[in-house]
Amino acid sequence: MTEDRLLQIVEFCKLIDKEKFVQRRTYLSDGERLENDAEHAWHMAVMALLLSDYANEKVDVLKVVSLLLVHDLVEIYAGDTFAYDEEGKKTQRERELAAADRLYSQLPEDLAGKMRALWDEFEDWGTAESKFAHTLDNFQPLLLQHASCGRAWREGGRKLSQVLERNARSSEGSLKLWEYARENFIQPEIDSGNLTDDVD
Amino acid sequence: MTEDRLLQIVEFCKLIDKEKFVQRRTYLSDGERLENDAEHAWHMAVMALLLSDYANEKVDVLKVVSLLLVHDLVEIYAGDTFAYDEEGKKTQRERELAAADRLYSQLPEDLAGKMRALWDEFEDWGTAESKFAHTLDNFQPLLLQHASCGRAWREGGRKLSQVLERNARSSEGSLKLWEYARENFIQPEIDSGNLTDDVD
Repeated sequence: MTEDRLLQIVEFCKLIDKEKFVQRRTYLSDGERLENDAEHAWHMAVMALLLSDYANEKVDVLKVVSLLLVHDLVEIYAGDTFAYDEEGKKTQRERELAAADRLYSQLPEDLAGKMRALWDEFEDWGTAESKFAHTLDNFQPLLLQHASCGRAWREGGRKLSQVLERNARSSEGSLKLWEYARENFIQPEIDSGNLTDDVD
Repeated sequence: MTEDRLLQIVEFCKLIDKEKFVQRRTYLSDGERLENDAEHAWHMAVMALLLSDYANEKVDVLKVVSLLLVHDLVEIYAGDTFAYDEEGKKTQRERELAAADRLYSQLPEDLAGKMRALWDEFEDWGTAESKFAHTLDNFQPLLLQHASCGRAWREGGRKLSQVLERNARSSEGSLKLWEYARENFIQPEIDSGNLTDDVD
């Protein structure tokens, strides 16, 4: 390992500080400030340590944590695509692929491959770890949505059909967490009038 | 696993959202906004994935990542103790022990033990993983300090002897990272006049 190699990795470590400036559309539990990507990733990674027993299949916790820690790094270049931005979602995959190429080419080749493989695995939904990571990626904002009294849903005029569409695959990683979220995060916001029930 | 158990864990997941409001004294790379504990933990956890080959001893990466993800949770109750606050540091250990008791008693007993063991291992500096985690816990703010043009050191009138004292054990986890930081983060800030060299 040469000094050049270390220099290159440390420059990358400096670059990813920018993830802290990528703002999401979910309010933190104080209902005042929006969350950023780094906070979101940290929160889910700790939740993975606490909730992995609730995955449908047995999961490698390090793999789940790694997927969650790095899955949003592409947004440093591609930006956060809001879950309910139908236009943005049409170009999301293309923008994020270009971002991944640009981002990971800045690492030494072996590490670039390792990090890119984590992102690809997350995106592919193929493994138990990817499925559980996706479930947490949906569960955590639902937790915050309820903790912040449904503010973002109320402000956005959100409908239940949209939330269910976004969560169409949430049960694949953990049926128990999805059922928990449906009952304890989503239903109370319908009852409070912050989410419109447009589903028969 | 009962519903009560899941409810208890999810309540804890909601509680730890508060780590995002614990402000540190290091500026992010934009030199404008101070970092919070959750961002700090996320950044170091990703750095552990990238830099673990530079640890003095072979480390279990999941263990390092886990230590880093949870090591500041006690600050939800104990607050961040500024590295150069000599008065605060006198009571830090006592405050953080009380915070750990209060925090982890809110989890089911088995998980409380597991999470508390992670914090104890970090605090004890006894394992290769703990030592490397501590090195990253010092290396990451040095990286940001230099990226933000030494603003916090300049504003605080910081001296080299203070920085060296804070980093007295940084080389125990990774001599290479400590030497890198000394040469590439600390020395340039001395050269720029943001850090006073008071060491003969």
